[in-house]
Amino acid sequence: MHAQTLIHARWVLPIEPAQVLEHHAVAIDGGKIVAVLPSTDAREQITADSVFERPNHVLMPGLVNAHTHSAMSLMRGMADDLPLMTWLEQHIWPVEGQFASAEFVRDGSRLAMAEMLLGGTTCFNDMYFFPDVVADEAQALGMRASLGMIVLDFPTAWAANADEYISKGVGLRDELKHHDLLSFCFAPHAPYTVSDEPLERIRALADETDIPVHMHVHETAFEVEQAAAAGSRPLARLDKLGLLNPNLNAVHMTQLDDDEIALCAERGLSVTHCPESNLKLASGQCRTGDLHAAGVNLAIGTDGAASNNDLDMLGELRSAALLAKATANDATALPAAAALRAATLGGAHAIGLADSIGSLATGKWADLCCIDLAQPATSPVYDPISAVVYAAARSQVSDVWVAGRRKVADGELQGVAVPALLETADAWRARIQAHLNEAQA
Amino acid sequence: MHAQTLIHARWVLPIEPAQVLEHHAVAIDGGKIVAVLPSTDAREQITADSVFERPNHVLMPGLVNAHTHSAMSLMRGMADDLPLMTWLEQHIWPVEGQFASAEFVRDGSRLAMAEMLLGGTTCFNDMYFFPDVVADEAQALGMRASLGMIVLDFPTAWAANADEYISKGVGLRDELKHHDLLSFCFAPHAPYTVSDEPLERIRALADETDIPVHMHVHETAFEVEQAAAAGSRPLARLDKLGLLNPNLNAVHMTQLDDDEIALCAERGLSVTHCPESNLKLASGQCRTGDLHAAGVNLAIGTDGAASNNDLDMLGELRSAALLAKATANDATALPAAAALRAATLGGAHAIGLADSIGSLATGKWADLCCIDLAQPATSPVYDPISAVVYAAARSQVSDVWVAGRRKVADGELQGVAVPALLETADAWRARIQAHLNEAQA
Repeated sequence: MHAQTLIHARWVLPIEPAQVLEHHAVAIDGGKIVAVLPSTDAREQITADSVFERPNHVLMPGLVNAHTHSAMSLMRGMADDLPLMTWLEQHIWPVEGQFASAEFVRDGSRLAMAEMLLGGTTCFNDMYFFPDVVADEAQALGMRASLGMIVLDFPTAWAANADEYISKGVGLRDELKHHDLLSFCFAPHAPYTVSDEPLERIRALADETDIPVHMHVHETAFEVEQAAAAGSRPLARLDKLGLLNPNLNAVHMTQLDDDEIALCAERGLSVTHCPESNLKLASGQCRTGDLHAAGVNLAIGTDGAASNNDLDMLGELRSAALLAKATANDATALPAAAALRAATLGGAHAIGLADSIGSLATGKWADLCCIDLAQPATSPVYDPISAVVYAAARSQVSDVWVAGRRKVADGELQGVAVPALLETADAWRARIQAHLNEAQA
Repeated sequence: MHAQTLIHARWVLPIEPAQVLEHHAVAIDGGKIVAVLPSTDAREQITADSVFERPNHVLMPGLVNAHTHSAMSLMRGMADDLPLMTWLEQHIWPVEGQFASAEFVRDGSRLAMAEMLLGGTTCFNDMYFFPDVVADEAQALGMRASLGMIVLDFPTAWAANADEYISKGVGLRDELKHHDLLSFCFAPHAPYTVSDEPLERIRALADETDIPVHMHVHETAFEVEQAAAAGSRPLARLDKLGLLNPNLNAVHMTQLDDDEIALCAERGLSVTHCPESNLKLASGQCRTGDLHAAGVNLAIGTDGAASNNDLDMLGELRSAALLAKATANDATALPAAAALRAATLGGAHAIGLADSIGSLATGKWADLCCIDLAQPATSPVYDPISAVVYAAARSQVSDVWVAGRRKVADGELQGVAVPALLETADAWRARIQAHLNEAQA
C-alpha cells in the first residue's frame, strides 16, 4: 500500500479499543487514517511520501475541547479570583458589550487556536458571537471547529433577539456545512438566558436535522436554586421541553442529585466537564465518577481562557482525573484511561463527530497528537496512559496533524506567525485596559 | 557598582513586598542579591560580567518545593488510581523494601532534581532514606536542598530503629551543616509511624538547635479517625508533646476543624499543602483559604512523583490556587498572589530559610526563576502574577539561578546529561517491572 504519511511511534493509543499498542504505526492518505498496524508490518507493507519516526513518543487522537469560548482568550487574566456572577456582570459582560466585534472574535479565536494546536487539541467546540468569523479563522488555520449557533433572549452585537440568533446560525450552517473541517451545534447559552419558546424551536430543529445542542446546564448552585424557587430545577425543565436526549451536550453540570444522574444515563445525553473553570469560579463539582459509573458519556472542556486561564486540554484532562477522585472521595474514580477517553472520543461523541474523529480507526480523519515522553518529568514510563494523563505537559506535544495536514512540527506551529499574534493580543489588552481605567476614573 | 550578574526583566516579582516591578533588574554578586532596582537606574549604576535581557519575562524567586520524596521519581506512574493505604501497603512499600538502596536514591533524586530545576524550583524539602546520598547529589547538581532526618519506629535499609534514625540524621547534619546549599529538618514520618518517645526526643533536639520539624500530619480521614478512636486526634497528641510550634512544618493537613485551624494560628506552625497528591489519593482537602485567612503560613509541595505524578511546582501552585476556591466554596479564596507567596516565601519560612531565600531582597541568596510569557497560552498579560499562577507552564521557565549560578539556560539544564538520566531511570523501571511481574506470577 502507498500512503501520503506514515508515523511510527513507541506507543500508539487508539482509545478504542482501550489499549496500548507498542511500536505501532499509523498510515494516512487523503486526510484519513488508512491503517494502524505494528511498525514491523508497516515497514514491509507500506510506502509513504513522508515517514516520521517517533521513538519516545505517544501517538494518539488529537484532543477534543468540548466546550470553549475561543475569542475570550483576549480577556485572559483580566479578572481573577471572583465568583461567577460578579465576574460576568461586572467584568466580562461590560467589556464584551464594548469590544466583542467581528475583529475581536477574529483575533481572539486565532490566538486561541494557536494555543490549542500547540497543546495537541485538534478540534474545539465553540460558543461565542460571530461564529462566521470563527469558521473563517478555523479554515485559515486548518483546525477542526464545531461552531455554536448561539442563542440568547437578549441582544448583542451578533443578533437582536432569539429569532435572529437562530436564523443567523441556521443560515451560516446551510452555507458552510459541506466544509470538511466545520461542523455545527445549536448553542442556547443557558437555561437562565433562553426562554421556553426558542428552546422549543431549537429542539424541533435539532430533532429534524440531528444536530447536537450545546448548552451550559447546572453550572452553579445559585442558578439551580433560583430556577427551583421559580418552579423547577433546570434539568427538569429541559426534560419537559424534550431537550434531554442523545443530541444534548450539557456543560458543567456541577449540581446533580442521584436521580438526575440516573436521568442523564436514561436520556443518553453527554456531559462536558470543565474542571478548572468550575474550581476557579467556585461553581461546584461535577460528579464525574458517578456519571462515568452510570454510563453517561463524559467529555472535557477548558471553558474560555478568561476563567481558566488557559486552553490546555492536557492540563484540563489531568485536573479532571485528579478532581474526580476528591469529588467521589474514591481514589479509583475516573481512572487515567477513562479521563483520556473523555478528552478525545468522549468529546467527539458529545459534539456529534464520534463517527469521524476521536479515536485511531481506519476511515476516520487523521486528527493526531504526538507527545514526546523523553523528559525528566515523564520518566520512567511504566504506563504511557498514566504518563500522558498525570505527568505530560502541553510543551511535550511534538507534532499535530489535522485531517492529515501537519499543523505542529517539532513543537512549532506551522503557517502562523506567532509573534504577530502576540502583538495583536497585546494591542487589544492595551485598548481594553485603557477603557477599564477610564471607566474606573 | 560592579556585579557578577545583572538580569533585566519586563516584570520583577519580589514577593515581599507583594508588588509587580515593571522594567526592573536584579544584580547578583557572590551568589547573593545585591540590588533590585529599575532597569534604567541599573544601566547607569551597575556594570556586570554577565548581563541578561529578558524583555517578555517574569523574574521571581525560585520556587520552593516544601514537601517531596525526591527518589520516588523512579516509581512515577507505577501504581495509579488507588487509595493511600492500598497504594502504600501493596505497591510502594513492597517495592521500596526491595529496591530503596543508596543507588536507587542517588538515581531517583538526581532525576527529580533535573525535573525540578527545569521547572523553576530551586530548593526542595526532602523526606526519604539515605539523605546523605541526596546531599551529595544536590551539591553535585548545585541545587538547594533541605534534607529530612527521617525517623520511623520500624526498620528500613537506612536504619534499624528510632534511635539509629535520629543518630544517623544528627550525625549527617553535624557533618554537612556548613555547606551553603544544604539545610536540615527533623523528619518524623507521621503520627501513626512514630511513637511518643522518639517524638519527645525530636522535640527536645529541635528546641535546642532551632531546626524545623517536617512531618505528615492529618493526611487522611482514616488516619485521624483511627487515632481518635485510640485516644486523641493526632494534632492534639502533637500539641501535648510540645511539637506544635513555629518549627513545625505540618504537611497535608486535610482534616482540620475550626478549633484546629485556630490552634495552628496560635501555635505559629506552617502548613504545607500538596493539592495534587491529596486529590489523586482522595485524601481529603486542606482548608487553605481558611488557614490563610487565620494567618497561618502556607507552603506548597508536590509530594513524591509516585502520587502526583510530577514535581512541577508551577502546576502545583495553580492546582492550589484553583482548589482553594472549591474547598472554601468561595472564588476569592487564596488569590493568585497568596498562592505565589506560598510557593516561594511561604515554603522558605516552613523550612526555616525565610531569612535567606524565598523573596528578592538584598542579602538573600540569588535563587531565581525566569519565565517567558511570550507564548499564546500566556498572552495577553493583564497581570503577570495571574499569568504565572493561572496560565504559565513549566516549559516556559527560561532560566534558573541557584546561589547565583545558572542551572537552566534558555530552557536547557546546565551540566547534566539528560539522556543518560532518562536511560538510568528506564533501567530501574525495567528491574522493578520484572520484579513485579515475577511477584504476580
